[in-house]
Amino acid sequence: MTEEAYEAIARLGTAPLWRYFGNLFNAEPRSRAVPYLWRYPELRPYLLHFADVLSLEEAERRVLMLVNPGLPDPPATTTTLYAGIQVILPGETAQAHRHSAGAFRFIIEGRGAYTTVNGERVHMHPGDLLLTPGWHWHDHAHEGDGPMLWLDGLDFPLVNALEAGFFELFGERTQKAEVPDDISSRQFIHGRLTPAWDPRPGPNSPIGNYPWTETARAFDAIAEDATGSDADGVVLEYTNPWNGGPVMPTIGCRIARLRPGFRGVVRRQTPSTIYHVVRGSGASRVDDQLLEWSEKDVFAVPGWARYQHVNSSTSQDAVLFSYTDAPAITALGLYREEVA
Amino acid sequence: MTEEAYEAIARLGTAPLWRYFGNLFNAEPRSRAVPYLWRYPELRPYLLHFADVLSLEEAERRVLMLVNPGLPDPPATTTTLYAGIQVILPGETAQAHRHSAGAFRFIIEGRGAYTTVNGERVHMHPGDLLLTPGWHWHDHAHEGDGPMLWLDGLDFPLVNALEAGFFELFGERTQKAEVPDDISSRQFIHGRLTPAWDPRPGPNSPIGNYPWTETARAFDAIAEDATGSDADGVVLEYTNPWNGGPVMPTIGCRIARLRPGFRGVVRRQTPSTIYHVVRGSGASRVDDQLLEWSEKDVFAVPGWARYQHVNSSTSQDAVLFSYTDAPAITALGLYREEVA
Amino acid sequence: MTEEAYEAIARLGTAPLWRYFGNLFNAEPRSRAVPYLWRYPELRPYLLHFADVLSLEEAERRVLMLVNPGLPDPPATTTTLYAGIQVILPGETAQAHRHSAGAFRFIIEGRGAYTTVNGERVHMHPGDLLLTPGWHWHDHAHEGDGPMLWLDGLDFPLVNALEAGFFELFGERTQKAEVPDDISSRQFIHGRLTPAWDPRPGPNSPIGNYPWTETARAFDAIAEDATGSDADGVVLEYTNPWNGGPVMPTIGCRIARLRPGFRGVVRRQTPSTIYHVVRGSGASRVDDQLLEWSEKDVFAVPGWARYQHVNSSTSQDAVLFSYTDAPAITALGLYREEVA
Amino acid sequence: MTEEAYEAIARLGTAPLWRYFGNLFNAEPRSRAVPYLWRYPELRPYLLHFADVLSLEEAERRVLMLVNPGLPDPPATTTTLYAGIQVILPGETAQAHRHSAGAFRFIIEGRGAYTTVNGERVHMHPGDLLLTPGWHWHDHAHEGDGPMLWLDGLDFPLVNALEAGFFELFGERTQKAEVPDDISSRQFIHGRLTPAWDPRPGPNSPIGNYPWTETARAFDAIAEDATGSDADGVVLEYTNPWNGGPVMPTIGCRIARLRPGFRGVVRRQTPSTIYHVVRGSGASRVDDQLLEWSEKDVFAVPGWARYQHVNSSTSQDAVLFSYTDAPAITALGLYREEVA
Repeated sequence: MTEEAYEAIARLGTAPLWRYFGNLFNAEPRSRAVPYLWRYPELRPYLLHFADVLSLEEAERRVLMLVNPGLPDPPATTTTLYAGIQVILPGETAQAHRHSAGAFRFIIEGRGAYTTVNGERVHMHPGDLLLTPGWHWHDHAHEGDGPMLWLDGLDFPLVNALEAGFFELFGERTQKAEVPDDISSRQFIHGRLTPAWDPRPGPNSPIGNYPWTETARAFDAIAEDATGSDADGVVLEYTNPWNGGPVMPTIGCRIARLRPGFRGVVRRQTPSTIYHVVRGSGASRVDDQLLEWSEKDVFAVPGWARYQHVNSSTSQDAVLFSYTDAPAITALGLYREEVA
Repeated sequence: MTEEAYEAIARLGTAPLWRYFGNLFNAEPRSRAVPYLWRYPELRPYLLHFADVLSLEEAERRVLMLVNPGLPDPPATTTTLYAGIQVILPGETAQAHRHSAGAFRFIIEGRGAYTTVNGERVHMHPGDLLLTPGWHWHDHAHEGDGPMLWLDGLDFPLVNALEAGFFELFGERTQKAEVPDDISSRQFIHGRLTPAWDPRPGPNSPIGNYPWTETARAFDAIAEDATGSDADGVVLEYTNPWNGGPVMPTIGCRIARLRPGFRGVVRRQTPSTIYHVVRGSGASRVDDQLLEWSEKDVFAVPGWARYQHVNSSTSQDAVLFSYTDAPAITALGLYREEVA
Repeated sequence: MTEEAYEAIARLGTAPLWRYFGNLFNAEPRSRAVPYLWRYPELRPYLLHFADVLSLEEAERRVLMLVNPGLPDPPATTTTLYAGIQVILPGETAQAHRHSAGAFRFIIEGRGAYTTVNGERVHMHPGDLLLTPGWHWHDHAHEGDGPMLWLDGLDFPLVNALEAGFFELFGERTQKAEVPDDISSRQFIHGRLTPAWDPRPGPNSPIGNYPWTETARAFDAIAEDATGSDADGVVLEYTNPWNGGPVMPTIGCRIARLRPGFRGVVRRQTPSTIYHVVRGSGASRVDDQLLEWSEKDVFAVPGWARYQHVNSSTSQDAVLFSYTDAPAITALGLYREEVA
Repeated sequence: MTEEAYEAIARLGTAPLWRYFGNLFNAEPRSRAVPYLWRYPELRPYLLHFADVLSLEEAERRVLMLVNPGLPDPPATTTTLYAGIQVILPGETAQAHRHSAGAFRFIIEGRGAYTTVNGERVHMHPGDLLLTPGWHWHDHAHEGDGPMLWLDGLDFPLVNALEAGFFELFGERTQKAEVPDDISSRQFIHGRLTPAWDPRPGPNSPIGNYPWTETARAFDAIAEDATGSDADGVVLEYTNPWNGGPVMPTIGCRIARLRPGFRGVVRRQTPSTIYHVVRGSGASRVDDQLLEWSEKDVFAVPGWARYQHVNSSTSQDAVLFSYTDAPAITALGLYREEVA
């Protein structure tokens, strides 16, 4: 009767765990994502091409998604995170909307654009990190010259995997400015000083922009005096002023300086990470792949993949911006790391 | 050139967001999971059949997975959670192992079995909730008469979706008892008293067993004096003594009494929930499905599905055990609910 | 000019730190409080006498304050805590009021009285711990036979030292019952189960009564199977269900069983502690004092005083209820302990 | 017998609560501290005089304590806080020690001195806020020209009231530099960026110096664009990077800009506050006292005293540094405020 029993239990909406056990419980994680590098110089011409032929009215957002070859459908850059390169032209606006997914932009090139986040206009400059946390209204506008390009980071692969995503269009194309421009940054970015009137602690950072000028000052101030991390160099975390933690509950953002000749130790961790090369060139071995990166490139390190960063130059710094799902993985009790 | 451009960008590992936008950002969640009911009387004969024909040496665990028809591969009961019915016979043992996934058992029938969790033997009785949090060694043994059946709840769909799962076999078939039997329960379950020597606060409850005897006393003590929830009746959360929160960082467990004739309001929430009927019979409308349940059945309510519980009896209580991913969804800032 | 300078600076409202330094900064704390024991059999007749001659209309509360000889003015039992013995007679009521100071009662003898706390009537039985956290309305009434006596514990020495105390009389002599009697205890005390409707997490426990019946069950369940503390025996902390911490932000309450023949190690800690002997007899050496205690006695252990508990009996348990300012001292970063 | 009873209970170490009730429970706090102003120009000559006649070998620290006329013994500035003005001359060193009390210095005038805190040399400039949290080794040295004067703030009145204070001399007169000078400030002060290697979250800020240069940049950046507090102006809290909270668990530090002509609303709160005038002049009505302050003055606002700040100038800003015991009062559940 056993074969019949297998058929019968299938009809009852069940399956025998003992035939699936090995697939469901692996000795260690094997990410479907693969180590991968996207070269900015290769992508940029196509971004400009589509900027030319596709209006922002047609494309809600004009973005090339960086699709991990291991994660084509639904498209994602790592298991939980997404990266895209967005371009906007002078005079354009991108429709205001909001979504459960948390997002940020890290500005690559251009000048004169701004994002309006819940009524605050936040201006962009290369190297700035702009936040649009989950369910915050945001639209983009470009009042400068030349194309504006940035890296978009979102957690929608995670939010969609959890089937917890909402989306809503704003009633008008763009929001009106309701507070002074860039006020959140100006109020929160200096000297670890926090406005003490009307405190509104929350899981998301209230800071619209972590400007590159301050990040540069941080590296200048630290100079050669930090020990830093053996694996990640002089690595700084962007923090939420309300609790000192990561900028959003699902995404942590970091900026790292690899000194000339830096050769990191081999490390791996359960969270996945996406890197953007702010400056310099080097190589990262990720499991069995060697990713040789240069300025403005983007690359993905899957969770539990071994990585080792090297700054190829013996005279120039390399600077890597990165973001990870470590806050989510940690909150769920799943963080683990290993240093070789 | 545009078509060529689309081909070229695909070769570069990118895709145009504007062609995917609607699929990636939905107005609200649409779970692939469907509302579904598993009737215990239909499953029980097959469990006993496989207990008869399949040894525990062959099957690491002898469990019928309750596979949601919308989530066949990988198999899951809701998007993030798993339910199975496990059977073990007198004299059997189930191999000691541990995994990143958090787990619990809710005992359905039988007497005389125990689980050893990190060296503590925890004995099972119908209605008991036993915890084996992530990365805790656990094995099962049955020293009583007759088959022992229980509901297994795990978060491996979540852990596997996050690609953060580890698994390890214990060096021997079973663990030795290293502390007095059932000590954790005896130390933590009474009068909200917590042992004050050697405190070890952590994200998981240290309690091996939340015994039914105490749960029954809780309902007796509350009697008709609680207002309860309009949607969920007199619903109590099993808590972690160290922080008052849910028993594990990814899974919350609850027990609810629906008074005779109870008819809940319609509610929905982003977390998904799996119910097990401890006592009584009734019906739950879940979106457009009517799930008519009786004692020992299991049913699934997907995230953001509207549900309404009814106790069909006008003289008998219905008691529903349930578990949900609400702790995870909340920690990630994605909790949302709506009451009609 | 120096002597003139000293006079001049005094007139300007200043003083030379260098003439005070040694008094302000000591090598270690030297409490003004002394180790002290109050024998219940000596106090009881006077409590009954005053119950006889003094009405509750005359005395807002009829309490003998246990005044530490080292802390006469303002009167206190330890530096931050107060203990008193209160008596109330059948038919009496004590005026409803509230104060910033947190309070509890630990019931010593009698039956039939209750406290109404923010509209909930909480009934008293020997061994029960009843809470009236800061700024909660409370009045007492006695509907039984014979006198009712209990230990009052408050933090007003701390609150008054911080000059942060408020007090208010209720508009009427007693509050009306607004919820079912003893509902908080019935909802929160069993099986670590917490009502999941209308959660109201806060720094104070919502439990009106931690009944002795449950405390006794805890000790019975643990039996001889706990290791316990070398200094304090099998010591259990009453906890706040919302966060697993102490019952109030300023006062922690504990109950300890010293096994027959228990002889603790010598320990000291910055918090101060007041003990009440629930059962048995023994002795505690506190610095150079030997406090020989019997059932119902109260004794004080000042902060940073060395103490060592001994259960003199080789056949009977001793049970000590205690309370301390450890939650406050710890929150302020001032906790320190030392075991000899 | 009643009079005898009163005598007898006194001999037993007790007192009748009913004869003390009104003194122990007041309708609202009445601080023994009084509103008071210390004028810097009056104090400065005496500080220089004592610098002249008293060596730092004789005086562990050369400080004029600002003693509140209501709190002469033990001397304190408010109920829980202390303020002093310290002077150190070129070439001097002040002995390394540590104490449980938390401390900071706010630099008033001079240049060329530094404090060594747990092995880090922290250099001082006017307007800088330097921390020496509880139990951190610290010594001072002056390598510049001219006298160096600063405001010392400590919580020893609180720590001593709680009888929880320890003190220890360092084995040598001064500590050696064990890390690069000013490294903590350089690593933590810019752009809300936190070093991500070797995180050591704790209740005290790891920042040795919150430099005036950054504070000035904050005010410049905010300019006229902040709403600010009706009572306290554009008031910013110095924060602990690890948790976003106050710099120490007992002391919160703030800096406020009162715009020209600012006239605050009347407010009171249970914490007490000490102000130091960094710039400008104005007046604060505190209960029935009018404190007319100018640059470098210090004044005390007792807990629950009504205060109203006015910037007398219609063209110049006033800038007030302040510190309070609000973190302690809040942690103990005793915070309360009232705005007229």
